[in-house]
Amino acid sequence: MSAVRAYNFSSGPAIMPLEVLESAAAELTDWQGSGMSVMEVSHRGKAFVACAAETEARLRSVMGIPDDYAVLFLQGGATGQFSAIPLNLTAPGDTIDVLHTGQWSAKAISEARKYGVDVRVVTDEKASNYTTTPAAGSYELNPAATYVHYTPNETIGGVAFHYVPETGDVPLVADMSSMILSEPVDVSKYGLIYAGTQKNMGPSGMCVVIVRRDLMGHARPETPTIVEYSGMAANDSMLNTPPTFGIYLLGKILAWVESKGGVEGIAEINRAKAAALYEYIDASDFYSNPVAPDSRSIMNVTFVLANPELDKAFVAQAEAAGLTNLAGHRSVGGMRASIYNAMPREGVDALIAFMADFAAKNS
Amino acid sequence: MSAVRAYNFSSGPAIMPLEVLESAAAELTDWQGSGMSVMEVSHRGKAFVACAAETEARLRSVMGIPDDYAVLFLQGGATGQFSAIPLNLTAPGDTIDVLHTGQWSAKAISEARKYGVDVRVVTDEKASNYTTTPAAGSYELNPAATYVHYTPNETIGGVAFHYVPETGDVPLVADMSSMILSEPVDVSKYGLIYAGTQKNMGPSGMCVVIVRRDLMGHARPETPTIVEYSGMAANDSMLNTPPTFGIYLLGKILAWVESKGGVEGIAEINRAKAAALYEYIDASDFYSNPVAPDSRSIMNVTFVLANPELDKAFVAQAEAAGLTNLAGHRSVGGMRASIYNAMPREGVDALIAFMADFAAKNS
Repeated sequence: MSAVRAYNFSSGPAIMPLEVLESAAAELTDWQGSGMSVMEVSHRGKAFVACAAETEARLRSVMGIPDDYAVLFLQGGATGQFSAIPLNLTAPGDTIDVLHTGQWSAKAISEARKYGVDVRVVTDEKASNYTTTPAAGSYELNPAATYVHYTPNETIGGVAFHYVPETGDVPLVADMSSMILSEPVDVSKYGLIYAGTQKNMGPSGMCVVIVRRDLMGHARPETPTIVEYSGMAANDSMLNTPPTFGIYLLGKILAWVESKGGVEGIAEINRAKAAALYEYIDASDFYSNPVAPDSRSIMNVTFVLANPELDKAFVAQAEAAGLTNLAGHRSVGGMRASIYNAMPREGVDALIAFMADFAAKNS
Repeated sequence: MSAVRAYNFSSGPAIMPLEVLESAAAELTDWQGSGMSVMEVSHRGKAFVACAAETEARLRSVMGIPDDYAVLFLQGGATGQFSAIPLNLTAPGDTIDVLHTGQWSAKAISEARKYGVDVRVVTDEKASNYTTTPAAGSYELNPAATYVHYTPNETIGGVAFHYVPETGDVPLVADMSSMILSEPVDVSKYGLIYAGTQKNMGPSGMCVVIVRRDLMGHARPETPTIVEYSGMAANDSMLNTPPTFGIYLLGKILAWVESKGGVEGIAEINRAKAAALYEYIDASDFYSNPVAPDSRSIMNVTFVLANPELDKAFVAQAEAAGLTNLAGHRSVGGMRASIYNAMPREGVDALIAFMADFAAKNS
């Protein structure tokens, strides 16, 4: 293939490794010499069962997931888990603690409240307009909470926790949609990790759930079968037809992560990419980043132009230069460069070069 | 591409038109000259919003969906709708009527019962081991039911309704997963139609819901946001990130259906395919089909060998001849040839020729 590829800074669905896309394209009509696409084979056939098992094994290996955690490939994205988690883990009247850091934690809060759960908002970064995360030790958690929920990386605000909240015996639940596979994670510190796949794990339409096995099996009777963890775990996520193409592509993406030195290797690349971009922004009078330095995301770098009247021209000229999807979320405006795993260093360098050029022409 | 393609009789995920796969493969790294895959672009960007709108418009045109019906592209497959439908349409204590014709209606029944709904099984084809459908006029429906649910085509048993149940003012709800787009359907006779996409509409991971607008907006407060119809309809199925690749492929498949003369043209081809296969089976002493002639599916043709000891050899030799996935469902055994829209007539002819050859060699 000789496609001219864009440097795509979309927040999700997002850039995927070119090698993965080329490999998928090459076998889209004939997978493993079967004369069939991977999309066309039964999820219960030997070939696909092996493919799904390989994806799970690779994920366990890459993330270091202990055996006492189940790995589930579900539908409904992270938003589906906003309801599935309270349905699976709580009874009506239970209390949960939430660290509120932006629009995604807000959604997790409002959905949990549908289920008669007493949602205690332990910290709320509203005062900083969600440009901060709470410092470790600055808040007190409820030792009787059923779980503590937080969002390690907020895609919209571009803020991130750079520590794991200490919750004692209370299970910690994390929406890792926009940072999973971007750096090493000590899974054993969590009760449940979930992540929509459309950022670092492939196309949209799937949610990976990693859940400590002792937390399963207590779902409310009205939990929809498609998100009841224990049934799904007992059936290798195939109680109903899973999103087979997503599972297959995740396997390829994990192999690509391995080729980059695993999450350790990827993390090093990611940190260097983010550091270069933040350094350039901080040194500039033309651009600025509103996020507290210790809360800056490695995945989603937000920035604003000193003169917002130039925003449209910036986005349009960047697009023309092959740097796509740089407009910030419609709710916050400004710019956002999502620099997920699949964004090469060259893409970040090209962005910085473009920003410098744009600043010079418009200063 | 010059892949050697199998004739794939899988019940789902299932065969897709080769033209669709080739077209998707050709643009998998560069869609519409964007330098990005369709899987990599934001669902809220202009290009994908237009793609989704085009898919919906094509579906409305191909199926003749009236304006007073919403079209939703949801996650969770048909199994997800087994819970979503009672959550959206009923209150606890409501009564619904179900025509029970096999394993799929059984799942719809047991999931609905989770929600405090009084599920009245109006007819149950157990006596025939689910090889029949109830005759029109042979049963009485409850005029006070909230809705009537039926499964026009049962994938596992290979049985189908060849009439639309008359339900008066009671909304008719149909799981069309394994027959949607295979023949014309008068949508106005239904309150709600739903279909997992992995048979006639593309890969797994999506469910199309076609719902009369007046039935929306009455969901129980605990309905998960990702399946609450009115919110999804108001947001063009983009309240959260939709399965973008599935929406894109469905659009291509609908264009392919149009090229075959729409559902009318496809239905003619489908009926001829099924008739040829049933005729051969009926004329044979070696094979037989257990389904009542007026209840035979046009999509899933089941058959058994007079000598079941030959089953394994049949499946293996068929596979070697490029006729794949002919084993019946693990719960019923025997054989099943799923001959969805994308199975060409040549595939059915090749199957019949193989069956004749196998019979001759083993008689």
